Amino acid sequence: MRVGLDVGGTKIDALALGPDDEIVARTRIPTGWGDHAVVTAVHDAIDALAAEGGFATADVVSVGIGIPGLVDAEGGRVLHAVNLGVADLDLASAVRTRLLVPVAVENDVKAAALGAGSLRGDAHSMAYLNLGTGVAAGIVIDGRLWRGARGTAGEIGHLSVDPGGRVCGCRQRGCIETFCGGGAVARAWGRGGALPILDIFDLAEAGDPLAAELRAGIAYGAASAVRCLVLSADVETVVIGGGVTALGDRLLGDLVRRLRLEGEGSAFIGSLRLDERIELLPAGSPAAALGAALVGAARMNAHEGAIHG
Amino acid sequence: MRVGLDVGGTKIDALALGPDDEIVARTRIPTGWGDHAVVTAVHDAIDALAAEGGFATADVVSVGIGIPGLVDAEGGRVLHAVNLGVADLDLASAVRTRLLVPVAVENDVKAAALGAGSLRGDAHSMAYLNLGTGVAAGIVIDGRLWRGARGTAGEIGHLSVDPGGRVCGCRQRGCIETFCGGGAVARAWGRGGALPILDIFDLAEAGDPLAAELRAGIAYGAASAVRCLVLSADVETVVIGGGVTALGDRLLGDLVRRLRLEGEGSAFIGSLRLDERIELLPAGSPAAALGAALVGAARMNAHEGAIHG
Repeated sequence: MRVGLDVGGTKIDALALGPDDEIVARTRIPTGWGDHAVVTAVHDAIDALAAEGGFATADVVSVGIGIPGLVDAEGGRVLHAVNLGVADLDLASAVRTRLLVPVAVENDVKAAALGAGSLRGDAHSMAYLNLGTGVAAGIVIDGRLWRGARGTAGEIGHLSVDPGGRVCGCRQRGCIETFCGGGAVARAWGRGGALPILDIFDLAEAGDPLAAELRAGIAYGAASAVRCLVLSADVETVVIGGGVTALGDRLLGDLVRRLRLEGEGSAFIGSLRLDERIELLPAGSPAAALGAALVGAARMNAHEGAIHG
Repeated sequence: MRVGLDVGGTKIDALALGPDDEIVARTRIPTGWGDHAVVTAVHDAIDALAAEGGFATADVVSVGIGIPGLVDAEGGRVLHAVNLGVADLDLASAVRTRLLVPVAVENDVKAAALGAGSLRGDAHSMAYLNLGTGVAAGIVIDGRLWRGARGTAGEIGHLSVDPGGRVCGCRQRGCIETFCGGGAVARAWGRGGALPILDIFDLAEAGDPLAAELRAGIAYGAASAVRCLVLSADVETVVIGGGVTALGDRLLGDLVRRLRLEGEGSAFIGSLRLDERIELLPAGSPAAALGAALVGAARMNAHEGAIHG
């Protein structure tokens, strides 16, 4: 069994891949806060998965973990995961102390990109754009993650697209994330609520001016992200997921309309057919956990290559 | 001899590469306007090059041509080169009627990217950012041009970075090109002159408010382009060339200051060390013609592979 875990701020989505790449078990358990709790939750998730799938943890041959934040993928360390209370954690070693198998750790958006490509059955040239609390993309070319020279490929959330825009958490103004990141939008909204993005969409329809401005901004930010990915890396397809996409077709509709409008206004942008190159990751998609499993399996293969090669 | 031609709006820069990749001859001749004149000028350039280098045109084994505008690189057609009065020209066939050798045609910025990488001796992960009449980049990864899924990789000149900015030739507002493209800046300046960018730099120092605004805009646009290339494709180095860079260290100084300022304002942007990742293409660099020669040589190798493979 190749295990993949998507460690989120509130839950871990865990799955096990069988020999024919089929998902043989999938389960979700709550995530903890801080180093110790995260490691415990990861162990618990693997146990729960084994129970769910009816296999022994000794049948696990590799583990891949996707986690939000800054990751040293080579060393298996989580260097900065604010939402999990982790500053520097050797997560791969912590898992290997219990399971003596190759363990790989990857940024969750990059893992999701790999998983989304695998689920599409075409990972030739695509990006996964995550509209979560923050905004980032993972780029997959010929079935492989494109990391770039220093690992920042796809970090387009912090590209400024409005010098007069709101101040971002990174201290720049008008970053793409200030327009379509769930955290920044909720702060700009400022009225609380469990689902601020849903409130914004609803109240925009009811004529609330701030809601209408923020809703238009979400489409503008997401459209800017898609334009950036196509005009720089020129990926064929942009798959969009993350918490903000829980709105589903309402969000997609706004974005498609925005991209069409931009295409009608500019023949050059129109020729890119951006509205036809986007798709939403379905709700509940196992992309992130699946991608994590693939990252873990790749680590196992590299390991075996080093032994037998 | 492998011949490379960089066909510009006013002149053709031509060079011949010898067997050890050394430049054995280089010459410049004026470009014509329209299909016939362009083809004639290309033939003349090859003749002039042979005379310069003391070789016969029968010694030419491949020809590569870099040309501004939309190019069908596979078919060797120039589809849209406004500055040359060409709408649809089968340039490769036109050259092959005289020289029975493989001929490749490539967008001039993409060719220059390949040449700049070759001249640096490190084309592992770099972009060439051309600040000419328009703005575009060519991305080179592991020594090969990255074209993207539909050939628009690197077309970041038309990424909007200011929704309230000036209208671009592409009809969007606030494209990077409206800030740092020579044509757009000269139009915004509106006072004519042979070297409007030089006037803008000089008069900005003399306190002219429009000149100061446009000069700051050039640095802002170029910085946005560098940020975009690093945050999307994450190339290690951005080499900057094109007519606007004729200002040399004055332009580079503005850009470095702008990037440092942005890095001081944002720890995330600062961590990218953008100011250390840029360099100017030296004035008179043969990068574009050299890149064209390499594109032609690659076509020849593909051709021989098809015959002997």
